[in-house]
Amino acid sequence: MISKSQLKLIRALGQKKQRKQLGKFLVQGEKNILELLNSNLDIEQVFASSTFLSQHKSVLKGISIEEANEAELSKASTLMSNNSAIAIVRQPAVSELKGSGKILVLDGVSDPGNLGTIIRLADWYGVVQVICSEDCADIYNPKTISATMGSFARVNTLVTNIVEYLSNCNLPVYGAYLGGDSVHDCKFTTDMVLVMGSESHGIRDHISSLINNKITIPSFGHAESLNVAMAAGIILDNVVRQHAAKSQSKR
Amino acid sequence: MISKSQLKLIRALGQKKQRKQLGKFLVQGEKNILELLNSNLDIEQVFASSTFLSQHKSVLKGISIEEANEAELSKASTLMSNNSAIAIVRQPAVSELKGSGKILVLDGVSDPGNLGTIIRLADWYGVVQVICSEDCADIYNPKTISATMGSFARVNTLVTNIVEYLSNCNLPVYGAYLGGDSVHDCKFTTDMVLVMGSESHGIRDHISSLINNKITIPSFGHAESLNVAMAAGIILDNVVRQHAAKSQSKR
Repeated sequence: MISKSQLKLIRALGQKKQRKQLGKFLVQGEKNILELLNSNLDIEQVFASSTFLSQHKSVLKGISIEEANEAELSKASTLMSNNSAIAIVRQPAVSELKGSGKILVLDGVSDPGNLGTIIRLADWYGVVQVICSEDCADIYNPKTISATMGSFARVNTLVTNIVEYLSNCNLPVYGAYLGGDSVHDCKFTTDMVLVMGSESHGIRDHISSLINNKITIPSFGHAESLNVAMAAGIILDNVVRQHAAKSQSKR
Repeated sequence: MISKSQLKLIRALGQKKQRKQLGKFLVQGEKNILELLNSNLDIEQVFASSTFLSQHKSVLKGISIEEANEAELSKASTLMSNNSAIAIVRQPAVSELKGSGKILVLDGVSDPGNLGTIIRLADWYGVVQVICSEDCADIYNPKTISATMGSFARVNTLVTNIVEYLSNCNLPVYGAYLGGDSVHDCKFTTDMVLVMGSESHGIRDHISSLINNKITIPSFGHAESLNVAMAAGIILDNVVRQHAAKSQSKR
Protein backbone atom coordinates (compact mmCIF):
# COMPACT_ATOMS: atom_id res chain seq x y z
CA MET A 1 0.00 0.00 0.00
CA ILE A 2 1.14 3.54 -0.70
CA SER A 3 0.66 5.64 2.44
CA LYS A 4 -0.57 9.22 2.36
CA SER A 5 2.86 10.61 3.15
CA GLN A 6 4.48 8.43 0.48
CA LEU A 7 1.88 9.59 -2.05
CA LYS A 8 2.63 13.17 -1.06
CA LEU A 9 6.36 12.58 -1.63
CA ILE A 10 5.79 11.01 -5.06
CA ARG A 11 3.59 13.91 -6.08
CA ALA A 12 6.16 16.40 -4.81
CA LEU A 13 8.82 14.75 -6.97
CA GLY A 14 6.72 15.62 -10.01
CA GLN A 15 7.90 19.22 -9.43
CA LYS A 16 11.36 20.51 -10.28
CA LYS A 17 11.69 22.69 -7.19
CA GLN A 18 10.87 19.80 -4.87
CA ARG A 19 13.21 17.43 -6.72
CA LYS A 20 16.04 19.90 -6.29
CA GLN A 21 15.26 20.50 -2.62
CA LEU A 22 14.90 16.81 -1.76
CA GLY A 23 17.72 15.59 -4.05
CA LYS A 24 15.52 12.76 -5.32
CA PHE A 25 13.66 11.83 -8.48
CA LEU A 26 11.13 9.33 -9.80
CA VAL A 27 11.65 6.42 -12.14
CA GLN A 28 8.44 4.90 -13.46
CA GLY A 29 7.46 1.93 -15.61
CA GLU A 30 8.84 -1.57 -16.05
CA LYS A 31 11.59 -0.92 -18.63
CA ASN A 32 13.04 2.10 -16.79
CA ILE A 33 12.87 0.44 -13.37
CA LEU A 34 14.64 -2.69 -14.64
CA GLU A 35 17.44 -0.51 -16.03
CA LEU A 36 17.52 1.33 -12.70
CA LEU A 37 17.87 -1.95 -10.78
CA ASN A 38 20.77 -2.81 -13.07
CA SER A 39 22.58 0.48 -12.30
CA ASN A 40 24.61 1.88 -9.40
CA LEU A 41 21.98 4.49 -8.57
CA ASP A 42 20.83 4.69 -4.99
CA ILE A 43 17.21 3.50 -4.77
CA GLU A 44 15.25 4.67 -1.75
CA GLN A 45 12.01 2.80 -2.34
CA VAL A 46 10.15 0.86 -5.01
CA PHE A 47 6.34 0.65 -5.19
CA ALA A 48 5.21 -2.11 -7.53
CA SER A 49 2.31 -4.36 -8.49
CA SER A 50 2.30 -7.97 -7.33
CA THR A 51 2.83 -9.07 -10.94
CA PHE A 52 5.95 -6.91 -11.27
CA LEU A 53 7.28 -8.16 -7.93
CA SER A 54 6.80 -11.82 -8.75
CA GLN A 55 8.29 -11.42 -12.24
CA HIS A 56 11.40 -9.60 -11.09
CA LYS A 57 12.07 -11.13 -7.67
CA SER A 58 15.72 -11.90 -8.42
CA VAL A 59 16.74 -8.32 -9.20
CA LEU A 60 14.83 -6.81 -6.28
CA LYS A 61 16.96 -8.29 -3.50
CA GLY A 62 18.08 -5.76 -0.93
CA ILE A 63 15.68 -3.08 -2.19
CA SER A 64 13.04 -1.51 0.05
CA ILE A 65 9.78 -2.61 -1.60
CA GLU A 66 6.13 -1.78 -1.05
CA GLU A 67 3.49 -3.75 -2.92
CA ALA A 68 0.65 -1.63 -4.31
CA ASN A 69 -2.31 -2.35 -6.52
CA GLU A 70 -2.73 -0.89 -10.00
CA ALA A 71 -5.25 1.70 -8.92
CA GLU A 72 -2.85 3.05 -6.30
CA LEU A 73 0.07 3.06 -8.74
CA SER A 74 -1.96 4.82 -11.43
CA LYS A 75 -3.12 7.41 -8.90
CA ALA A 76 0.42 8.04 -7.68
CA SER A 77 2.13 8.04 -11.09
CA THR A 78 2.91 11.33 -12.78
CA LEU A 79 2.69 9.62 -16.19
CA MET A 80 -0.33 8.50 -18.18
CA SER A 81 0.90 4.95 -18.67
CA ASN A 82 3.80 2.80 -17.42
CA ASN A 83 2.27 2.22 -14.02
CA SER A 84 3.46 -1.21 -12.98
CA ALA A 85 6.13 0.26 -10.71
CA ILE A 86 7.39 3.58 -9.31
CA ALA A 87 10.78 4.11 -7.71
CA ILE A 88 12.08 6.95 -5.58
CA VAL A 89 15.79 7.43 -6.35
CA ARG A 90 18.50 9.66 -4.88
CA GLN A 91 20.08 12.04 -7.39
CA PRO A 92 23.69 10.97 -7.91
CA ALA A 93 26.61 13.27 -7.16
CA VAL A 94 27.65 15.30 -10.20
CA SER A 95 30.18 13.27 -12.14
CA GLU A 96 33.51 14.72 -13.21
CA LEU A 97 33.52 16.33 -16.65
CA LYS A 98 34.97 14.13 -19.39
CA GLY A 99 37.89 15.74 -21.20
CA SER A 100 37.77 13.51 -24.26
CA GLY A 101 35.35 11.45 -26.32
CA LYS A 102 32.18 12.62 -28.03
CA ILE A 103 30.38 15.27 -26.00
CA LEU A 104 26.92 16.69 -26.64
CA VAL A 105 26.08 20.23 -25.50
CA LEU A 106 22.42 21.33 -25.45
CA ASP A 107 21.63 25.04 -25.67
CA GLY A 108 18.11 25.52 -24.28
CA VAL A 109 16.46 22.24 -25.32
CA SER A 110 13.28 22.81 -23.35
CA ASP A 111 11.05 19.84 -24.09
CA PRO A 112 11.58 16.98 -21.59
CA GLY A 113 10.64 14.39 -24.23
CA ASN A 114 13.29 15.71 -26.61
CA LEU A 115 15.88 15.79 -23.83
CA GLY A 116 15.09 12.19 -22.87
CA THR A 117 15.24 11.06 -26.50
CA ILE A 118 18.64 12.76 -26.86
CA ILE A 119 19.96 10.96 -23.76
CA ARG A 120 18.77 7.62 -25.24
CA LEU A 121 20.52 8.54 -28.48
CA ALA A 122 23.71 9.51 -26.64
CA ASP A 123 23.66 6.05 -25.08
CA TRP A 124 23.25 4.43 -28.54
CA TYR A 125 26.16 6.33 -30.06
CA GLY A 126 28.51 6.11 -27.07
CA VAL A 127 28.50 9.83 -26.24
CA VAL A 128 30.49 10.16 -23.01
CA GLN A 129 28.78 13.26 -21.68
CA VAL A 130 25.61 15.32 -22.25
CA ILE A 131 25.97 18.91 -21.03
CA CYS A 132 22.81 21.00 -20.64
CA SER A 133 22.52 24.77 -20.39
CA GLU A 134 20.76 25.92 -17.24
CA ASP A 135 17.52 26.61 -19.13
CA CYS A 136 17.21 23.13 -20.65
CA ALA A 137 14.38 20.86 -19.49
CA ASP A 138 15.15 19.14 -16.19
CA ILE A 139 17.08 15.89 -16.55
CA TYR A 140 15.04 14.49 -13.63
CA ASN A 141 11.65 15.49 -15.04
CA PRO A 142 9.57 12.27 -15.11
CA LYS A 143 8.91 12.81 -18.85
CA THR A 144 12.65 13.09 -19.52
CA ILE A 145 13.42 9.94 -17.53
CA SER A 146 10.61 8.09 -19.28
CA ALA A 147 11.80 9.10 -22.77
CA THR A 148 15.35 7.89 -22.07
CA MET A 149 14.03 4.29 -22.04
CA GLY A 150 16.52 3.39 -19.35
CA SER A 151 19.50 5.31 -20.72
CA PHE A 152 19.27 7.82 -17.82
CA ALA A 153 21.07 5.16 -15.79
CA ARG A 154 24.09 5.05 -18.13
CA VAL A 155 24.65 8.49 -19.67
CA ASN A 156 26.63 11.15 -17.78
CA THR A 157 24.65 14.35 -17.69
CA LEU A 158 25.57 17.73 -16.30
CA VAL A 159 23.81 21.09 -16.05
CA THR A 160 26.22 24.00 -16.27
CA ASN A 161 26.99 27.37 -17.77
CA ILE A 162 27.73 26.28 -21.34
CA VAL A 163 29.40 29.58 -22.29
CA GLU A 164 32.01 28.93 -19.62
CA TYR A 165 32.28 25.28 -20.60
CA LEU A 166 32.75 26.01 -24.31
CA SER A 167 35.17 28.87 -23.62
CA ASN A 168 37.46 26.52 -21.71
CA CYS A 169 37.02 23.51 -23.94
CA ASN A 170 39.99 22.23 -25.94
CA LEU A 171 38.03 20.02 -28.34
CA PRO A 172 36.77 21.05 -31.79
CA VAL A 173 33.21 22.35 -31.41
CA TYR A 174 30.62 21.57 -34.11
CA GLY A 175 27.21 23.25 -34.07
CA ALA A 176 23.99 22.31 -35.90
CA TYR A 177 22.62 25.12 -38.09
CA LEU A 178 20.27 25.35 -41.07
CA GLY A 179 22.95 26.95 -43.22
CA GLY A 180 26.28 25.24 -42.45
CA ASP A 181 28.48 22.70 -44.23
CA SER A 182 26.84 19.42 -45.16
CA VAL A 183 27.35 16.68 -42.56
CA HIS A 184 27.82 14.33 -45.51
CA ASP A 185 31.05 16.07 -46.52
CA CYS A 186 32.29 17.20 -43.11
CA LYS A 187 35.38 15.65 -41.50
CA PHE A 188 34.75 15.01 -37.82
CA THR A 189 37.47 14.53 -35.25
CA THR A 190 37.24 11.48 -32.99
CA ASP A 191 37.02 13.59 -29.84
CA MET A 192 34.63 16.46 -30.37
CA VAL A 193 31.78 18.55 -29.02
CA LEU A 194 28.45 18.81 -30.84
CA VAL A 195 26.18 21.73 -29.87
CA MET A 196 22.43 21.46 -30.56
CA GLY A 197 20.16 24.50 -30.18
CA SER A 198 16.64 24.85 -28.85
CA GLU A 199 13.51 23.62 -30.65
CA SER A 200 12.35 27.09 -31.58
CA HIS A 201 15.44 29.29 -31.86
CA GLY A 202 18.38 27.02 -32.66
CA ILE A 203 21.80 27.89 -31.22
CA ARG A 204 21.80 31.33 -29.59
CA ASP A 205 24.03 34.12 -30.86
CA HIS A 206 26.28 34.31 -27.81
CA ILE A 207 27.03 30.58 -28.21
CA SER A 208 27.64 30.82 -31.96
CA SER A 209 30.91 32.68 -31.50
CA LEU A 210 32.23 29.66 -29.56
CA ILE A 211 31.57 27.22 -32.40
CA ASN A 212 34.36 26.23 -34.82
CA ASN A 213 32.34 24.34 -37.42
CA LYS A 214 28.79 25.11 -38.50
CA ILE A 215 27.18 21.98 -39.91
CA THR A 216 23.85 21.16 -41.59
CA ILE A 217 21.84 18.09 -42.51
CA PRO A 218 21.15 18.49 -46.22
CA SER A 219 17.49 18.52 -47.21
CA PHE A 220 16.10 16.88 -50.34
CA GLY A 221 12.48 17.96 -49.88
CA HIS A 222 10.46 20.84 -48.50
CA ALA A 223 10.21 20.50 -44.71
CA GLU A 224 11.65 23.61 -43.06
CA SER A 225 13.46 21.82 -40.27
CA LEU A 226 13.84 18.59 -38.31
CA ASN A 227 13.11 17.99 -34.66
CA VAL A 228 16.20 18.68 -32.48
CA ALA A 229 16.49 15.08 -31.24
CA MET A 230 16.14 13.77 -34.79
CA ALA A 231 18.81 16.17 -36.02
CA ALA A 232 21.15 15.13 -33.19
CA GLY A 233 20.68 11.47 -34.14
CA ILE A 234 21.40 12.02 -37.81
CA ILE A 235 24.51 14.11 -37.07
CA LEU A 236 25.87 11.59 -34.53
CA ASP A 237 25.41 8.82 -37.09
CA ASN A 238 27.47 10.85 -39.56
CA VAL A 239 30.15 11.37 -36.91
CA VAL A 240 30.52 7.75 -35.82
CA ARG A 241 30.44 6.25 -39.32
CA GLN A 242 33.74 7.99 -40.04
CA HIS A 243 35.56 6.65 -37.03
CA ALA A 244 34.28 3.25 -36.20
CA ALA A 245 33.16 1.63 -39.44
CA LYS A 246 35.66 -1.17 -38.93
CA SER A 247 35.68 -1.61 -35.18
CA GLN A 248 31.96 -1.30 -34.54
CA SER A 249 30.18 -3.94 -32.56
CA LYS A 250 27.44 -5.34 -34.77
CA ARG A 251 24.17 -5.87 -32.90
CA MET B 1 -17.75 33.08 -32.52
CA ILE B 2 -17.81 29.30 -32.63
CA SER B 3 -21.45 28.12 -32.58
CA LYS B 4 -22.60 25.08 -30.63
CA SER B 5 -22.98 23.00 -33.77
CA GLN B 6 -19.54 24.04 -35.02
CA LEU B 7 -18.03 23.14 -31.65
CA LYS B 8 -19.78 19.77 -31.86
CA LEU B 9 -18.29 19.18 -35.31
CA ILE B 10 -14.75 20.10 -34.18
CA ARG B 11 -15.04 17.77 -31.21
CA ALA B 12 -16.37 14.98 -33.43
CA LEU B 13 -13.33 15.35 -35.69
CA GLY B 14 -11.16 14.48 -32.69
CA GLN B 15 -12.42 10.90 -33.18
CA LYS B 16 -11.23 8.57 -35.93
CA LYS B 17 -14.67 7.05 -36.63
CA GLN B 18 -16.22 10.48 -37.10
CA ARG B 19 -13.35 11.70 -39.29
CA LYS B 20 -13.83 8.68 -41.55
CA GLN B 21 -17.61 9.09 -41.68
CA LEU B 22 -17.50 12.82 -42.38
CA GLY B 23 -14.43 12.71 -44.65
CA LYS B 24 -12.92 15.70 -42.85
CA PHE B 25 -10.09 16.43 -40.44
CA LEU B 26 -8.71 19.20 -38.24
CA VAL B 27 -5.61 21.31 -38.72
CA GLN B 28 -4.63 23.36 -35.67
CA GLY B 29 -2.01 25.94 -34.81
CA GLU B 30 -0.37 28.76 -36.74
CA LYS B 31 2.46 26.86 -38.46
CA ASN B 32 0.24 24.01 -39.69
CA ILE B 33 -2.57 26.32 -40.83
CA LEU B 34 -0.16 28.50 -42.80
CA GLU B 35 1.15 25.40 -44.58
CA LEU B 36 -2.45 24.35 -45.18
CA LEU B 37 -3.29 27.73 -46.74
CA ASN B 38 -0.30 27.24 -49.02
CA SER B 39 -1.54 23.82 -50.21
CA ASN B 40 -4.21 22.55 -52.59
CA LEU B 41 -6.25 21.01 -49.79
CA ASP B 42 -9.93 21.88 -49.66
CA ILE B 43 -10.56 24.04 -46.58
CA GLU B 44 -14.13 24.12 -45.32
CA GLN B 45 -13.76 26.64 -42.51
CA VAL B 46 -11.11 28.43 -40.47
CA PHE B 47 -11.70 29.64 -36.90
CA ALA B 48 -9.01 32.05 -35.78
CA SER B 49 -8.12 34.76 -33.30
CA SER B 50 -8.23 38.40 -34.40
CA THR B 51 -4.43 38.53 -34.13
CA PHE B 52 -4.03 35.57 -36.49
CA LEU B 53 -6.54 37.07 -38.93
CA SER B 54 -4.89 40.46 -39.06
CA GLN B 55 -1.41 38.96 -39.39
CA HIS B 56 -2.33 36.62 -42.24
CA LYS B 57 -4.99 38.56 -44.12
CA SER B 58 -3.31 38.14 -47.50
CA VAL B 59 -3.32 34.34 -47.48
CA LEU B 60 -6.87 34.04 -46.16
CA LYS B 61 -8.63 35.43 -49.23
CA GLY B 62 -11.50 33.28 -50.45
CA ILE B 63 -11.55 31.17 -47.27
CA SER B 64 -14.63 30.89 -45.06
CA ILE B 65 -13.48 32.50 -41.80
CA GLU B 66 -14.99 32.83 -38.37
CA GLU B 67 -13.28 35.02 -35.79
CA ALA B 68 -13.14 33.52 -32.30
CA ASN B 69 -11.49 34.57 -29.08
CA GLU B 70 -8.71 32.61 -27.41
CA ALA B 71 -10.95 31.08 -24.78
CA GLU B 72 -13.29 29.70 -27.46
CA LEU B 73 -10.37 28.37 -29.52
CA SER B 74 -8.75 26.73 -26.49
CA LYS B 75 -12.06 25.14 -25.55
CA ALA B 76 -12.62 23.83 -29.07
CA SER B 77 -9.06 22.65 -29.73
CA THR B 78 -8.18 18.98 -29.29
CA LEU B 79 -4.56 19.95 -28.52
CA MET B 80 -3.04 21.42 -25.39
CA SER B 81 -1.38 24.31 -27.18
CA ASN B 82 -1.32 25.81 -30.69
CA ASN B 83 -4.70 27.44 -30.32
CA SER B 84 -4.50 30.56 -32.45
CA ALA B 85 -6.47 28.90 -35.26
CA ILE B 86 -8.40 25.74 -36.11
CA ALA B 87 -9.33 24.63 -39.62
CA ILE B 88 -11.82 22.05 -40.81
CA VAL B 89 -10.45 20.42 -43.96
CA ARG B 90 -11.87 17.88 -46.42
CA GLN B 91 -9.82 14.70 -46.70
CA PRO B 92 -8.26 14.60 -50.18
CA ALA B 93 -9.00 11.80 -52.63
CA VAL B 94 -6.47 8.98 -52.33
CA SER B 95 -3.56 9.77 -54.61
CA GLU B 96 -2.26 7.28 -57.13
CA LEU B 97 0.54 5.05 -55.86
CA LYS B 98 4.02 6.14 -56.94
CA GLY B 99 5.88 3.45 -58.85
CA SER B 100 9.36 4.93 -58.38
CA GLY B 101 11.34 7.09 -55.99
CA LYS B 102 11.96 6.50 -52.32
CA ILE B 103 8.96 4.95 -50.59
CA LEU B 104 8.45 4.43 -46.88
CA VAL B 105 6.23 1.57 -45.63
CA LEU B 106 5.11 1.56 -41.99
CA ASP B 107 4.14 -1.74 -40.38
CA GLY B 108 1.96 -0.94 -37.37
CA VAL B 109 3.48 2.37 -36.25
CA SER B 110 0.81 3.12 -33.67
CA ASP B 111 1.85 6.36 -32.02
CA PRO B 112 0.39 9.43 -33.80
CA GLY B 113 3.36 11.57 -32.75
CA ASN B 114 5.81 9.10 -34.30
CA LEU B 115 3.73 8.90 -37.49
CA GLY B 116 3.65 12.70 -37.77
CA THR B 117 7.39 12.95 -37.15
CA ILE B 118 7.98 10.35 -39.88
CA ILE B 119 5.84 12.34 -42.35
CA ARG B 120 7.90 15.47 -41.55
CA LEU B 121 11.05 13.44 -42.11
CA ALA B 122 9.75 12.04 -45.41
CA ASP B 123 9.20 15.64 -46.50
CA TRP B 124 12.80 16.54 -45.53
CA TYR B 125 14.32 13.63 -47.45
CA GLY B 126 12.07 13.81 -50.51
CA VAL B 127 10.28 10.50 -49.93
CA VAL B 128 7.56 10.33 -52.63
CA GLN B 129 5.11 8.17 -50.69
CA VAL B 130 4.41 7.00 -47.14
CA ILE B 131 2.38 3.79 -47.04
CA CYS B 132 0.76 2.79 -43.74
CA SER B 133 -0.57 -0.62 -42.72
CA GLU B 134 -4.20 -0.56 -41.68
CA ASP B 135 -3.29 -0.71 -37.98
CA CYS B 136 -0.98 2.32 -38.03
CA ALA B 137 -2.04 5.47 -36.18
CA ASP B 138 -4.52 7.56 -38.16
CA ILE B 139 -2.89 10.00 -40.58
CA TYR B 140 -5.68 12.49 -39.76
CA ASN B 141 -5.34 12.19 -35.97
CA PRO B 142 -4.83 15.78 -34.70
CA LYS B 143 -1.62 14.67 -32.94
CA THR B 144 -0.27 13.24 -36.20
CA ILE B 145 -1.12 16.40 -38.14
CA SER B 146 0.43 18.54 -35.42
CA ALA B 147 3.69 16.53 -35.37
CA THR B 148 4.12 16.84 -39.15
CA MET B 149 4.80 20.58 -38.68
CA GLY B 150 3.04 21.31 -41.97
CA SER B 151 4.43 18.40 -43.98
CA PHE B 152 0.99 16.70 -44.00
CA ALA B 153 0.18 19.14 -46.82
CA ARG B 154 3.03 17.91 -49.02
CA VAL B 155 3.67 14.21 -48.41
CA ASN B 156 1.58 11.57 -50.22
CA THR B 157 0.20 9.14 -47.68
CA LEU B 158 -1.83 5.99 -48.21
CA VAL B 159 -3.35 3.38 -45.91
CA THR B 160 -3.43 -0.05 -47.48
CA ASN B 161 -2.79 -3.75 -47.08
CA ILE B 162 1.01 -3.67 -47.03
CA VAL B 163 1.36 -7.42 -47.63
CA GLU B 164 -0.42 -6.97 -50.95
CA TYR B 165 1.56 -3.84 -51.71
CA LEU B 166 4.94 -5.42 -50.98
CA SER B 167 4.01 -8.63 -52.84
CA ASN B 168 3.34 -6.65 -56.01
CA CYS B 169 6.17 -4.18 -55.62
CA ASN B 170 9.01 -4.23 -58.15
CA LEU B 171 11.46 -2.12 -56.13
CA PRO B 172 14.15 -3.46 -53.78
CA VAL B 173 12.70 -3.64 -50.28
CA TYR B 174 14.90 -2.75 -47.28
CA GLY B 175 13.69 -3.40 -43.74
CA ALA B 176 14.98 -2.01 -40.41
CA TYR B 177 15.98 -4.73 -37.92
CA LEU B 178 18.21 -4.93 -34.86
CA GLY B 179 20.37 -7.61 -36.45
CA GLY B 180 20.80 -6.79 -40.15
CA ASP B 181 23.64 -5.38 -42.28
CA SER B 182 25.06 -2.04 -41.18
CA VAL B 183 23.48 0.94 -42.95
CA HIS B 184 26.99 2.38 -43.09
CA ASP B 185 28.14 -0.35 -45.48
CA CYS B 186 24.90 -1.02 -47.32
CA LYS B 187 24.45 -0.10 -51.00
CA PHE B 188 21.04 1.47 -51.54
CA THR B 189 19.33 1.71 -54.91
CA THR B 190 17.99 5.12 -55.97
CA ASP B 191 14.41 3.86 -56.16
CA MET B 192 13.61 1.72 -53.15
CA VAL B 193 11.20 0.83 -50.41
CA LEU B 194 12.12 1.14 -46.72
CA VAL B 195 9.95 -0.77 -44.22
CA MET B 196 9.88 0.35 -40.59
CA GLY B 197 8.20 -1.79 -37.91
CA SER B 198 6.11 -0.86 -34.88
CA GLU B 199 7.48 0.76 -31.73
CA SER B 200 7.15 -2.38 -29.63
CA HIS B 201 7.48 -5.35 -32.00
CA GLY B 202 9.47 -4.20 -35.01
CA ILE B 203 8.59 -5.64 -38.43
CA ARG B 204 6.12 -8.52 -38.14
CA ASP B 205 7.03 -12.02 -39.30
CA HIS B 206 4.57 -12.16 -42.20
CA ILE B 207 6.13 -8.97 -43.59
CA SER B 208 9.73 -10.14 -43.08
CA SER B 209 9.48 -12.70 -45.89
CA LEU B 210 8.76 -9.83 -48.30
CA ILE B 211 11.94 -7.96 -47.43
CA ASN B 212 15.06 -8.30 -49.61
CA ASN B 213 17.62 -6.54 -47.40
CA LYS B 214 17.66 -6.50 -43.61
CA ILE B 215 19.51 -3.43 -42.38
CA THR B 216 20.61 -2.10 -39.00
CA ILE B 217 21.88 1.14 -37.51
CA PRO B 218 25.12 0.17 -35.76
CA SER B 219 25.27 0.93 -32.06
CA PHE B 220 28.35 2.19 -30.24
CA GLY B 221 26.87 2.25 -26.76
CA HIS B 222 24.36 0.40 -24.62
CA ALA B 223 20.84 1.61 -25.49
CA GLU B 224 18.75 -1.36 -26.64
CA SER B 225 17.01 0.42 -29.47
CA LEU B 226 16.14 3.75 -31.04
CA ASN B 227 12.70 5.30 -31.47
CA VAL B 228 11.14 4.28 -34.81
CA ALA B 229 11.01 7.82 -36.18
CA MET B 230 14.63 8.41 -35.18
CA ALA B 231 15.69 5.16 -36.84
CA ALA B 232 13.80 6.09 -40.03
CA GLY B 233 15.59 9.45 -40.09
CA ILE B 234 19.06 7.96 -39.66
CA ILE B 235 18.44 5.31 -42.33
CA LEU B 236 17.02 7.84 -44.83
CA ASP B 237 20.09 10.01 -44.30
CA ASN B 238 22.29 7.02 -45.12
CA VAL B 239 20.21 6.36 -48.25
CA VAL B 240 20.27 9.88 -49.67
CA ARG B 241 23.94 10.58 -48.96
CA GLN B 242 24.83 7.88 -51.48
CA HIS B 243 22.74 9.29 -54.30
CA ALA B 244 22.63 12.98 -54.05
CA ALA B 245 25.86 14.13 -52.44
CA LYS B 246 26.69 16.21 -55.49
CA SER B 247 23.30 17.43 -56.62
CA GLN B 248 21.87 18.31 -53.24
CA SER B 249 20.35 21.68 -52.63
CA LYS B 250 22.24 23.25 -49.76
CA ARG B 251 19.95 24.98 -47.27
